[in-house]
Amino acid sequence: MIRVGIVGYGYWGPNLVRNFSESPRFKVASISDLSSARRAAAEKQYPMAKVVADCKDVLADPSVDAVAISTPVSTHFEIARAAIEAGKHVLLEKPMTREVGEAQRLVDLAAKHKTTLMVDHTFVYLGAVRKMKELADAGELGELLYYDSVRINLGLFQHDVNVIWDLAPHDLSILDYLVAEKPVAVQATGTKHVAGRPESMAYVTLRYESSFLAHLHINWLAPVKIRQTLLGGTKKMIVYDDLAIAEKIKVYDRGVDVEPSPDVAYQLRVGYRSGDMWSPKIDQSEALKVEVAHFADCVEHGKTPVTDGEAGLRVVRVLAATSKSISERGRVIRLGEDD
Amino acid sequence: MIRVGIVGYGYWGPNLVRNFSESPRFKVASISDLSSARRAAAEKQYPMAKVVADCKDVLADPSVDAVAISTPVSTHFEIARAAIEAGKHVLLEKPMTREVGEAQRLVDLAAKHKTTLMVDHTFVYLGAVRKMKELADAGELGELLYYDSVRINLGLFQHDVNVIWDLAPHDLSILDYLVAEKPVAVQATGTKHVAGRPESMAYVTLRYESSFLAHLHINWLAPVKIRQTLLGGTKKMIVYDDLAIAEKIKVYDRGVDVEPSPDVAYQLRVGYRSGDMWSPKIDQSEALKVEVAHFADCVEHGKTPVTDGEAGLRVVRVLAATSKSISERGRVIRLGEDD
Amino acid sequence: MIRVGIVGYGYWGPNLVRNFSESPRFKVASISDLSSARRAAAEKQYPMAKVVADCKDVLADPSVDAVAISTPVSTHFEIARAAIEAGKHVLLEKPMTREVGEAQRLVDLAAKHKTTLMVDHTFVYLGAVRKMKELADAGELGELLYYDSVRINLGLFQHDVNVIWDLAPHDLSILDYLVAEKPVAVQATGTKHVAGRPESMAYVTLRYESSFLAHLHINWLAPVKIRQTLLGGTKKMIVYDDLAIAEKIKVYDRGVDVEPSPDVAYQLRVGYRSGDMWSPKIDQSEALKVEVAHFADCVEHGKTPVTDGEAGLRVVRVLAATSKSISERGRVIRLGEDD
Amino acid sequence: MIRVGIVGYGYWGPNLVRNFSESPRFKVASISDLSSARRAAAEKQYPMAKVVADCKDVLADPSVDAVAISTPVSTHFEIARAAIEAGKHVLLEKPMTREVGEAQRLVDLAAKHKTTLMVDHTFVYLGAVRKMKELADAGELGELLYYDSVRINLGLFQHDVNVIWDLAPHDLSILDYLVAEKPVAVQATGTKHVAGRPESMAYVTLRYESSFLAHLHINWLAPVKIRQTLLGGTKKMIVYDDLAIAEKIKVYDRGVDVEPSPDVAYQLRVGYRSGDMWSPKIDQSEALKVEVAHFADCVEHGKTPVTDGEAGLRVVRVLAATSKSISERGRVIRLGEDD
Repeated sequence: MIRVGIVGYGYWGPNLVRNFSESPRFKVASISDLSSARRAAAEKQYPMAKVVADCKDVLADPSVDAVAISTPVSTHFEIARAAIEAGKHVLLEKPMTREVGEAQRLVDLAAKHKTTLMVDHTFVYLGAVRKMKELADAGELGELLYYDSVRINLGLFQHDVNVIWDLAPHDLSILDYLVAEKPVAVQATGTKHVAGRPESMAYVTLRYESSFLAHLHINWLAPVKIRQTLLGGTKKMIVYDDLAIAEKIKVYDRGVDVEPSPDVAYQLRVGYRSGDMWSPKIDQSEALKVEVAHFADCVEHGKTPVTDGEAGLRVVRVLAATSKSISERGRVIRLGEDD
Repeated sequence: MIRVGIVGYGYWGPNLVRNFSESPRFKVASISDLSSARRAAAEKQYPMAKVVADCKDVLADPSVDAVAISTPVSTHFEIARAAIEAGKHVLLEKPMTREVGEAQRLVDLAAKHKTTLMVDHTFVYLGAVRKMKELADAGELGELLYYDSVRINLGLFQHDVNVIWDLAPHDLSILDYLVAEKPVAVQATGTKHVAGRPESMAYVTLRYESSFLAHLHINWLAPVKIRQTLLGGTKKMIVYDDLAIAEKIKVYDRGVDVEPSPDVAYQLRVGYRSGDMWSPKIDQSEALKVEVAHFADCVEHGKTPVTDGEAGLRVVRVLAATSKSISERGRVIRLGEDD
Repeated sequence: MIRVGIVGYGYWGPNLVRNFSESPRFKVASISDLSSARRAAAEKQYPMAKVVADCKDVLADPSVDAVAISTPVSTHFEIARAAIEAGKHVLLEKPMTREVGEAQRLVDLAAKHKTTLMVDHTFVYLGAVRKMKELADAGELGELLYYDSVRINLGLFQHDVNVIWDLAPHDLSILDYLVAEKPVAVQATGTKHVAGRPESMAYVTLRYESSFLAHLHINWLAPVKIRQTLLGGTKKMIVYDDLAIAEKIKVYDRGVDVEPSPDVAYQLRVGYRSGDMWSPKIDQSEALKVEVAHFADCVEHGKTPVTDGEAGLRVVRVLAATSKSISERGRVIRLGEDD
Repeated sequence: MIRVGIVGYGYWGPNLVRNFSESPRFKVASISDLSSARRAAAEKQYPMAKVVADCKDVLADPSVDAVAISTPVSTHFEIARAAIEAGKHVLLEKPMTREVGEAQRLVDLAAKHKTTLMVDHTFVYLGAVRKMKELADAGELGELLYYDSVRINLGLFQHDVNVIWDLAPHDLSILDYLVAEKPVAVQATGTKHVAGRPESMAYVTLRYESSFLAHLHINWLAPVKIRQTLLGGTKKMIVYDDLAIAEKIKVYDRGVDVEPSPDVAYQLRVGYRSGDMWSPKIDQSEALKVEVAHFADCVEHGKTPVTDGEAGLRVVRVLAATSKSISERGRVIRLGEDD
């Protein structure tokens, strides 16, 4: 039984606590939150856990084996650093940190202290996303050509981060998981619909050494809610609609066939293929439940998490590049240019 | 009765001839096409028209008042120039020309010869697009914030033009029609899915002096067909789905309300508005029928076409900038930079 | 503060308890369930409530003002009768009883004992249904012509009741609420997809004195989930899609216009009207929350519930007639024929 | 080359003429229509065909091998009878006749004169319907359980026939084609939304010896257009949406599994199966083109048409029973009861 402390009981924290408490492999030892109202809620719901204001009381408790951190991103680095230095295994909310340097330091620290550092890229543990990974890895899609995601709705304007830091981590973590090749350059365009606020709408393009291309449209000010991703391959293409009640994943046997033309020398014939569509059954488990079980595996058996610190760092590197691109009016930013 | 000659009887030409022949204001005098098979088809369908191989025979015919040109884009400039110099009124297929300079010369020539020069931006004459224009002009949407269009399907790979020159003229002409402000810079990213062929998928961003933003996703290699446009305003937002059987236009009373916060000095409160949705009845007339009637008005009464040569030129200028941006790996191109 | 006891903590009971406990007007005094596992769950979640096995301990408690009953339908009559005779106000799960006679006796008993008898027709308290009622009552739809509902999915086969008794109470209660006119005859057709089990699919037709017509398709063995209702009127028509994420209610300005024909004596001209569509904003409150507040109003102020015992009786009368119709191979059953 | 005459050039006739004229196996010899305007249209479009007012001139022409009849249903019997007696092969518009006796006489006459009698049940020749037949015949669906069709929209009110005779032939012919078992009883309910006009909305139920059940909802006064059919089987179930742009047919691996329960003697365990969905590619050919080719096969090689006179007769028998059921206020009518 792993004894876990949860730091932060705001929007996401209650989901973490619920999943840890329902897991047979964890015992929720303590919960911390700065708000007395939230502490009261935690105490009422989980009378067996120790509920405290200061996260230091969680981190200093020697009986706590692991810490899950779901606080504002600006506090991630300090809390995670302290937790790792106290020898705790860490599950850290996304985005991992505000800066590339911070993320890199956490990765290094965790290696040094031999603790598990896992980033809470929840979407990676969704049945639909795991099914896409399974199909892509099995070669069903052929060579991957593009990833296109639209993630828009009438959303809550954030004060402290722009729409990219708010919504793009979902797609960037999915992309990092699905595609072995990593991006080499990033370009972003955003606009502010309320003066003085962060960007509320943005387009992000990721370029790769190969001709693979990834693109995100993220928007807090859209009339309709859309969560749709296209994953194009040379053999098959997937449409993933996260809002679909049924058939979230559709696999299309469609594409382009290129073959040497018999009649024209040195010329290729480009043909079309439009065949069946197939919608596989998807595991309906709650993503966080799957993730919590994976965290237990990593903590108990020293496995490397699928969404480890390196994955979190790669996502932060892209996010930082989008901010740079926007501030330089759309310049293409090479990744690693000036981390 | 305006006597019209149609040059080019390939994919689009028959639609032009049909609409001109059904209009009480036109008489189809002649049709030209280089292919004998197409000439045979034209002769069978329109026994009263003179069908010829060489377009010069159409242009040289003094009884012809107007010429509609629907040939490959590479031939537009020469044929249109000859037609204008022969004093004909011209309806020219989109995109107007391959180059900005050519488009500019046609505009100048038409002014000099006092003939009507209209570009066949068909979508501008669709009921749905005219309804969006009507709502925007009436102030229903408030200040316009963004235009976002997805125009993708498993489409025919073209040999001579890339996916932007093939599909973007639709959105660029709609945008030019709907939005009074004109773009100042363009950025494009594209990728080739078949080596040695033109780009088959691209993203185009148009920037404006204001915070208005326009963006297109165009793709010949998508698993599903999508023709969806979002037009965001401060008061209301529109979703235009060109594939919807009913309710092509949906107007959402949704947006963000910004007001001075009573309790916090110097701070604005950002609130959300999510009200009714309304789908107005749309005029179902064939766009080309409306366009042909407008062409008659312009020819007969000397009106300036809604989609005049200047509009065609503006679209070509953006297209040319996308090609430059792609060739320079995504650099932001100022419009007019080096026309 | 009304002290309420909940009898039955199975599928629906926990929703009742949660809503009563969140209401400022109720205090959950006691909960009863025959299952020790369910009692343990209730105790853990609601440590302040008295949790007992025998519902008699709830009914006999003089401090309990009201009782909510969510037990199997076969037990409804006995428990509700005892509760009313003990002077309790009663909220009774649907369908109210297995037989018309039982429902009638409960109505009579409640009148005699001057207690509130309310039937838990939850759908009547949904924002979408209340909006339909509001539009119909305001005359927006004109004269009502028909109600057509499809309520199908791959559902749980019940052992004790057929698909009509399981699913039709939803529509029959909506219908009873929306339409002032009451049905005079019922016809039903059903079929069993598993031998020896109750009907798993059925069609129910309700006839009225006027030309109004109501029809239900209910099915446990459908490949897709559909919850769609059409409400047709002479002026406007509504499509209500309960599964729609947004725009659950769409109001269509469509219909038929009948007017005396000027040229043909004694003949009417029938024309079509196809205008705008409008989707009003819907109150998103949980139906049960609205219902619980209404129950408090009725208990405290002696109001007659919208879904009172008479409404529950009318629904049971139709259900009983469908069973009779099926057993007589589709014979049309007059309501009241042999209650 | 089969010389064909077309009788009736109204709504459907031009589609027949176009398909016959595009077929290499037919020559359109003559066309008749009572309206001079329609004759003028036919002459303009098909200058090589003889266009006449009186259908007798078509039937009396010895050079005509086959006749296609698309006139009002009230005239079908007389024209078809005359054609068969003149030794012509006949393609007859649906519904075949107004009465069962008429249909039977045409079947007998065609047998006697050894001519092909084919009924124009167009939907049977659609790619989507042929794919359903192929899947059902291959046993993919298991044992068929039900057919449920919704065919509604804001349609044209007919003067002479009710909504059942107008729309139900589509479904009845599909059903007759797909399902080997034939119905034994019919029940129908309809209502008139305009006084003095035929029924504008109806529900039709078909019962079979087995537990298979078929049901139609047909409606001229619906706010939205729906053309959706469910075909349920013990192994798999199909949803056929005729309005879908892509994926008209979806095959769901869903159903109920019944197996002997190991722990309870004499009791069956009912389980659910919810697996993949699959949407096969559909032949996009125009149904009428496929039908015309099949008619040629039958005429030239003496084959029995898939939609022969017997199929047409079975459809008329059901239609007649619906009229009887409506006139007797929903009584269940045994087929063959009093033909």
